[in-house]
Amino acid sequence: MLKKVLIANRGEIAVRIVRACAEMGVRSVAIYTEPDRYGLHVKRADEAYMLGEDPLAGYLDPLRIVNLALETGCDAIHPGYGFLSENAEFARLCEVNGLIFIGPKSSVIHGMGDKTQARNSMRAANVPVTPGSEGNLKDLGEALTLAGEIGYPIMIKATSGGGGRGIRRCDNDEELKTHYPRVISEATKAFGSAEVFMEKCIVDPLHIEVQILADSHGNVIHLFERDCSIQRRNQKLIEIAPSPQLSQEKREYIGDLAVRAAKAVGYENAGTVEFLITGDEVYFMEMNTRVQVEHTISEQITGVDIVQEQLNVAAGLPLTYQQKDIQFRGYALQFRVNAEDPKNDFLPSFGRVTHYYAPGGPGVRVDTAIYTGYEIPPYYDSMCLKLVVWALSWDQVIARGQRALDDMRLHGIKTTADYYQQILRHPAFRQANFNTSFVPNHPELLDYSVKRHPSEIALAIASAIAAHAGW
Amino acid sequence: MLKKVLIANRGEIAVRIVRACAEMGVRSVAIYTEPDRYGLHVKRADEAYMLGEDPLAGYLDPLRIVNLALETGCDAIHPGYGFLSENAEFARLCEVNGLIFIGPKSSVIHGMGDKTQARNSMRAANVPVTPGSEGNLKDLGEALTLAGEIGYPIMIKATSGGGGRGIRRCDNDEELKTHYPRVISEATKAFGSAEVFMEKCIVDPLHIEVQILADSHGNVIHLFERDCSIQRRNQKLIEIAPSPQLSQEKREYIGDLAVRAAKAVGYENAGTVEFLITGDEVYFMEMNTRVQVEHTISEQITGVDIVQEQLNVAAGLPLTYQQKDIQFRGYALQFRVNAEDPKNDFLPSFGRVTHYYAPGGPGVRVDTAIYTGYEIPPYYDSMCLKLVVWALSWDQVIARGQRALDDMRLHGIKTTADYYQQILRHPAFRQANFNTSFVPNHPELLDYSVKRHPSEIALAIASAIAAHAGW
Repeated sequence: MLKKVLIANRGEIAVRIVRACAEMGVRSVAIYTEPDRYGLHVKRADEAYMLGEDPLAGYLDPLRIVNLALETGCDAIHPGYGFLSENAEFARLCEVNGLIFIGPKSSVIHGMGDKTQARNSMRAANVPVTPGSEGNLKDLGEALTLAGEIGYPIMIKATSGGGGRGIRRCDNDEELKTHYPRVISEATKAFGSAEVFMEKCIVDPLHIEVQILADSHGNVIHLFERDCSIQRRNQKLIEIAPSPQLSQEKREYIGDLAVRAAKAVGYENAGTVEFLITGDEVYFMEMNTRVQVEHTISEQITGVDIVQEQLNVAAGLPLTYQQKDIQFRGYALQFRVNAEDPKNDFLPSFGRVTHYYAPGGPGVRVDTAIYTGYEIPPYYDSMCLKLVVWALSWDQVIARGQRALDDMRLHGIKTTADYYQQILRHPAFRQANFNTSFVPNHPELLDYSVKRHPSEIALAIASAIAAHAGW
Repeated sequence: MLKKVLIANRGEIAVRIVRACAEMGVRSVAIYTEPDRYGLHVKRADEAYMLGEDPLAGYLDPLRIVNLALETGCDAIHPGYGFLSENAEFARLCEVNGLIFIGPKSSVIHGMGDKTQARNSMRAANVPVTPGSEGNLKDLGEALTLAGEIGYPIMIKATSGGGGRGIRRCDNDEELKTHYPRVISEATKAFGSAEVFMEKCIVDPLHIEVQILADSHGNVIHLFERDCSIQRRNQKLIEIAPSPQLSQEKREYIGDLAVRAAKAVGYENAGTVEFLITGDEVYFMEMNTRVQVEHTISEQITGVDIVQEQLNVAAGLPLTYQQKDIQFRGYALQFRVNAEDPKNDFLPSFGRVTHYYAPGGPGVRVDTAIYTGYEIPPYYDSMCLKLVVWALSWDQVIARGQRALDDMRLHGIKTTADYYQQILRHPAFRQANFNTSFVPNHPELLDYSVKRHPSEIALAIASAIAAHAGW
């Protein structure tokens, strides 16, 4: 087994990895930058090292992180999600320095990060991809011809893009002529590559992704799917496992597809194969070569600890489970409680958490790095808490989500919690009838009054009096 | 469905019931006495009413509680555990006032509360009971004759007793002569009845109990068993579901026995049938006619929300599940984190919770009514938090328990958390080899040094400096 793992991340995912290490008897090393000196991951890890004053540079410095891992006697690095997690160069740097990168081989990260290469690998493995260009587009002329063949709407996408950036939808020739140079310009700036490709735009699809686990012995299993259709501007808000919108037949079909995709590229460790589904059509979208924010809900329905399995297979051990061991039970929802103000176009609402009390009781899981008195730094992701609920039935899990969101106390910042209550109340959601257009199609979800708990009001009054009295 | 439920309890179980009500759209009414005015159940319930200054009287006043339920328009009362939960007279008072008592019929509570009547009912239903007196003992002479027949050691027990009180073990005639009048005296004082009976003492048994659920339509199911052998002076400390010490064959056998026992007495609602098991022998011990502290672990392994089922069947609805729907998965442990000092003979350690932060992440559930700043009142049970962990395997659940106990921050009072870490480290426990003598047989479990978190030490130093400086 691994002996000591450096966690090249922060916030809740770093805490999540510390916990997995602790349960496996593996020592954990945290890194942090100055604004994170009071971070929970710093408090909970066995060791913690500061990597400079700059909020971000330390988390994004492959060489410095690899050197620290070597100096502190780590045998492995867990990259979490975001930051360097899908940086093939970072993985390669680990490899050449004799450190285990807890993820797939750097060549696989590279191959999946290049979206046209990924599409080609999938085509070769008989995994259906959306109609589109065979490789990168040569020029606008080729784009116009191809769009004529496959039919509008189409998407122009940056080959090296990801996370919903470097993407434009075009509904006709005029839009294609306008957007084509824009995507190239964005891609060059954001990803350092001018390469773009074309995909048919699948209108109002379900966004369904399959969690897979693979070891270095050729074993690949899946942990069923997650329904991530509840999105706003390509950012997932509420994730669901399993999808309440799939038949068992389609569930097995996409599970098999995902395993085939992973095997085709020699995948190792945890990963996610994302699909777009509309009616009977299923298309490979992309593969995420890291643990995902929403891995939690797959853990809740299958019981498998995904991060522990990551450490296991990184150590060269075979997967703990075979496919036949993996069963799912009930439904899980994950709410990404973001420090944002939905009433103000989801503007980030960083600041001090004046009061936090975790929801509890049956079927409730919380992954967070916040605590009462914590000052949420403005330099990072606005997601400050993952509330996961589980119950045996769809109706029960919705009721549990409503209860748990209500049970939580999180004062001092604005969050998306009340907005999620609106979604849980919506008839279409309750009837498990939604796709990626659910959020944009229902602007009325924003028509709610912000509920303030009496304790919060009392605190506000007390503060006002204190301020007035000059205390 | 029920519309409004009065919760005749306090602390974590009252909060647990509020949550079940909330998820079912049922309005909840809390009661409290003066020392509980800042209780979490008061904050979380939809309505709350104070029943006097006396810490206990309000919680133990059947007439006042029933009247309040009627005045506030409740249609049902949930008694929780302890207090009036097994008081047949209270249940009857609800019945005659047209209120639903969320539990079995008062006659069944009475029948199971009378231990000799319960034994007779079980004998009639072919449920094995420990060898002993057919009914209550007439006098010491009969006791001595019977003890000669069944063989020492034997137990003399108060017929109306419960919760481990009114019980004495006798290893020979001399001890029987000494203890017989003592139990009669104790029983008279504690339970208002001088009746006692004799049972053969089962030495070093497993304490195994089966969770059952029954509706008013004659359906009875079980949710498998809990292993409560980790006890100190008849008080459960760590409970486990399912028992890692039972074969599947024995598991099914006792499950069937429990269902048969419940059917024999016309049981309704949630209940627990307790057995003593030694080798191949299985004996009925008693039936608890209420929700138990440790119901949580059965929820974790089966996914069934026991309190919601209680409300369902109390409303006259059939059980949501049939026996074939009930499957268990993995293992769950519940740690009763008590405000006690194990190093000082488990003396209660009431006081102010200076800092509390809930453990989180995968497989962790917390049921508690404490919070930072909460002053634990000295009038009630010392149990202040239930930490429940779940994992797919026995080894994993132990590791998770260790991690979660370590993850929790609970400062200001002494607790049993570190003592539980000792149990989790013990080879016999890890090998799933323990019985009710485990704790008394291992006094070395108390040989540990109390770990103090740096934050706690810093606070203590700061307080000392502040005190010295006269701030």
